[in-house]
Amino acid sequence: MPTLRIALAQDNPVVGDLDHNADLIRRAASAATAAGAHLLATGEQSLTGYPVEDLAMRHSFVEASRDRLLRLAEELAADGNGSLPVAVGYLDADGPIGSTTGHGIRNALALLQDGKVLFRYYKHHLPNYGVFDEDRWFVAGHELHLARIGGVDVAFTVCEDVWGGVPFGVAAEAGAGLVVNINASPYEQGKHERRLTVVKNRAAGLGAPIAYLNTVGGQDDLVFDGGSMIVAADGSILASARRFAAELLVTDVECAASTGRDIANHSSALMSASLHVLSEEPATVETRVEPSFAPELSRHEEVWEALRLGLHDYVEKNGFPSVLLGLSGGIDSAVTAVLARDAIGGERVYTVANPSQYSSQHSLDDAADLAERCGLNHVVEPIQPIVDAYLSEIAVSGLALENLQARVRGVIWMSLSNQHGHLVLAAGNKSEYAVGYSTLYGDSCGGFAPIKDVLKTLVYELANWRNEKARSLGETEPIPENIIMKPPSAELRPDQLDSDSLPDYAVLDGILVGYVDGDAGREDLVEQGYPAEVVDRIAGLVDRAEYKRRQSAPGTKITVKSFGRDRRLPITNHFRGKPS
Amino acid sequence: MPTLRIALAQDNPVVGDLDHNADLIRRAASAATAAGAHLLATGEQSLTGYPVEDLAMRHSFVEASRDRLLRLAEELAADGNGSLPVAVGYLDADGPIGSTTGHGIRNALALLQDGKVLFRYYKHHLPNYGVFDEDRWFVAGHELHLARIGGVDVAFTVCEDVWGGVPFGVAAEAGAGLVVNINASPYEQGKHERRLTVVKNRAAGLGAPIAYLNTVGGQDDLVFDGGSMIVAADGSILASARRFAAELLVTDVECAASTGRDIANHSSALMSASLHVLSEEPATVETRVEPSFAPELSRHEEVWEALRLGLHDYVEKNGFPSVLLGLSGGIDSAVTAVLARDAIGGERVYTVANPSQYSSQHSLDDAADLAERCGLNHVVEPIQPIVDAYLSEIAVSGLALENLQARVRGVIWMSLSNQHGHLVLAAGNKSEYAVGYSTLYGDSCGGFAPIKDVLKTLVYELANWRNEKARSLGETEPIPENIIMKPPSAELRPDQLDSDSLPDYAVLDGILVGYVDGDAGREDLVEQGYPAEVVDRIAGLVDRAEYKRRQSAPGTKITVKSFGRDRRLPITNHFRGKPS
Repeated sequence: MPTLRIALAQDNPVVGDLDHNADLIRRAASAATAAGAHLLATGEQSLTGYPVEDLAMRHSFVEASRDRLLRLAEELAADGNGSLPVAVGYLDADGPIGSTTGHGIRNALALLQDGKVLFRYYKHHLPNYGVFDEDRWFVAGHELHLARIGGVDVAFTVCEDVWGGVPFGVAAEAGAGLVVNINASPYEQGKHERRLTVVKNRAAGLGAPIAYLNTVGGQDDLVFDGGSMIVAADGSILASARRFAAELLVTDVECAASTGRDIANHSSALMSASLHVLSEEPATVETRVEPSFAPELSRHEEVWEALRLGLHDYVEKNGFPSVLLGLSGGIDSAVTAVLARDAIGGERVYTVANPSQYSSQHSLDDAADLAERCGLNHVVEPIQPIVDAYLSEIAVSGLALENLQARVRGVIWMSLSNQHGHLVLAAGNKSEYAVGYSTLYGDSCGGFAPIKDVLKTLVYELANWRNEKARSLGETEPIPENIIMKPPSAELRPDQLDSDSLPDYAVLDGILVGYVDGDAGREDLVEQGYPAEVVDRIAGLVDRAEYKRRQSAPGTKITVKSFGRDRRLPITNHFRGKPS
Repeated sequence: MPTLRIALAQDNPVVGDLDHNADLIRRAASAATAAGAHLLATGEQSLTGYPVEDLAMRHSFVEASRDRLLRLAEELAADGNGSLPVAVGYLDADGPIGSTTGHGIRNALALLQDGKVLFRYYKHHLPNYGVFDEDRWFVAGHELHLARIGGVDVAFTVCEDVWGGVPFGVAAEAGAGLVVNINASPYEQGKHERRLTVVKNRAAGLGAPIAYLNTVGGQDDLVFDGGSMIVAADGSILASARRFAAELLVTDVECAASTGRDIANHSSALMSASLHVLSEEPATVETRVEPSFAPELSRHEEVWEALRLGLHDYVEKNGFPSVLLGLSGGIDSAVTAVLARDAIGGERVYTVANPSQYSSQHSLDDAADLAERCGLNHVVEPIQPIVDAYLSEIAVSGLALENLQARVRGVIWMSLSNQHGHLVLAAGNKSEYAVGYSTLYGDSCGGFAPIKDVLKTLVYELANWRNEKARSLGETEPIPENIIMKPPSAELRPDQLDSDSLPDYAVLDGILVGYVDGDAGREDLVEQGYPAEVVDRIAGLVDRAEYKRRQSAPGTKITVKSFGRDRRLPITNHFRGKPS
């Protein structure tokens, strides 16, 4: 059997920054050549970044992607890496935008060698659910390409192709000895395990190994978690790359030699196949590279790393010098501040305590304690004189007065942001955003909300896990125990507690998982054992919160479900999951 | 030839309010029966409202829609309208959500008669561009249904089917004497003319008339503009309903009698067809009804009515008692205030002038003058003492100080909203939102932005048109001439003018039409004659504004293009339309 040395470039591109991304690919090619690789694969849309969203609709961007690909091929050759076949993900077009003729904008993979494009493959399965809108942007392709490399017929596929499966069926028919699958697959809890199951099943169906490459890095509200791997036909993992970090994974893989069968005769009704012969001579390696395996992460470490990387890349890719957040002495802003410290270092984190007449001394003390432990830049700016200035102008009471205090804080943070260039972080968690337990233009101010997709119960778990990790490393626990132990309160009126307004967070989070994430109806939730009156109240709060969130930006659609795009409900939603 | 009396119910449903929407259909059926109609059609998703967005993902809602349809059929019979065939749009399912087997959630049309469902048609062409996400929500149908009514074979189709055309080809093959096409087609400038062209072309291809029914009313950020019509094979308009108002359009239409050909033999590869015989006897009418024709609207009246109806329905469908906005004395808040007065009456419109030290006396006078002319509830709340309270706490200068003033105003409006229940209206126009010439959490505060999709040049045209309309009716001009004539200024620093920061609005708007609406690149715009340095500056502002808007709601996707969903760009968009 030939032995292919496969290099997978698990890299972190920036959407739209073609030159930067091309440089990443060139560096990976030089490293792969130095390592003696027979083949290099880079991620889905590695040249353009993913997701390009509506940049796909801009002719000039599509042209720029196509042109940059040709230049990249020449640069690779000029770098001395011309003989290395390099798979590059990019944006292409073979027809106009919005075409319905089977041609149009393509999520493409090109194989480059000797300064030229050997072929262009167009992704077949286009995901159009959750955070994906690929039916909107792209037209599906119907031709699989195989390259004979070192005597092995290697098929090339993109991301969803491994979930949908049609190209893998054609690859099996064509007798592929290896399938490369390049991805930009965003992180969700439990997703990596689901990926592994899918890849193993496809490898078994194929009877050949799969080289699964994933992108890494944060892009807006998505986090790509890496975890690239090579999986054999028997389901064993031959090598794996780290999660949440860039890596060039180089692995020697024994692959079946080409059977030489006529591939054109093995096209299905859905896809044709074509073969490009690069090298017939069976590939060999002098000395086997030691296969590398990434450490497994605990559930909490995985979530923490996803949040940390997402925040880090949002700050760095957008060029912010620093972040600023209000530090209330509560659990949410504490966890957000520690995440920020872990992401970009405490010296770039600015925190403000904004006590009102309802703020407790322990909150101020706990905030200062945390800032001290983490080396943050911390100041105290009382808000009562400003609140009083408003009250001498307009009559405000009750909930409106609670919101006023939160908004005065928001204006202070935004003013400091405008003056000094900090990115404001909003410290809200998913549970409170879902039920609208926050103030529009108040504590929800900010350009990035690191824990917006974390339920309150998980916020507590993460706080405990992070302190435990510090203890295990012999470091100071970043979060004062008092912040974790005290009952949560917004401190916007005397003796206020979250539990005055909301059920126990374990109950609330359980209902939210069903109603928001699961699209469950009222009867489903009651059957799961939640009291009907609590279900009705929470569903009503979620629907009204949806409405309130949308108010934050006139006429826009805003979602709560998770990272990226999810739940979109009409604002005038008179249906409450309870058919009359 | 049989003569069919066709009733088209151009109605205004509320998304999710199944009982309310069923009542609208029952009332239309009673009126149609009283008018002697042979057939009643109601709009696309007339039972559920359109768009249902992610309610389509909720099993309990799909079940509720299916159940309500069956009850509606019984109610129509109990009302004494059982013999009238009624086409109802609703949400159905013949498979699970997210199914890829060709079954799943359906955008459906049912024909009801005698208390029963005669057939269920599933929309074939699913739009997935602009404001539409139907590939995400629905699975396409592949069976056309015809009903023989009064000896005429009538085919039933839904919305995009008339643009895509496949069901019309099958209907022609099957010898349909009439095609009913029910729509929820949102308003855009020039859309009604495009619709008319498409319907005429289809009618010519079909060789038979088309009954084109559109929904009317505002739903969140969409406005359905009505304008239902019956178009003959020769392209003549046999009748038309008003724009922007509900109407039952009753028309007598001569249709070719059924040829009796075997419809099952006239299926195409893409769609099959089936026939349901309701009545063979050729339909006749005793006395012809006079066909009614809607008045044509001027371009400005059309835009004004779209804005007015959208605002009206947002307020009423969401149950707001009143609206509140800041009245600066400038053109944008003036036009917004007059729109609000036209939509819900001056007594429900609350306006606030918030002078700072930079506000001119003429601005205060102009604002008071407009409020007086329009009968609005107007108050003056100076902001300087509150701004000073902030300045005694934090050091703020330059642009940050400009933004602070705008944010103090925003907090006042939101406090009044929280205290009294007003919906806050944001008065920004599309030109300034597109380039970010507004303050996040300041003047952009609000739950609805009536003119967010109106370019500044069109704002001026609308102001002049509205005053001219008042003059033609012998009424007081609502907008003081001084507001229209003075040069625009944000009045956030001494002697500030918009022209300090932005090119002439005619140039700005021209570039925005190309860059934002047209997805044109830099070279395209330079070719159109715009100076390269102005194009670069505006494109940069738009990209940064996109980023700024998204900051208003952490991690969400926010758009500028037009009503509803449009432009979605990655935040870390390092591509500026200028390939390096």
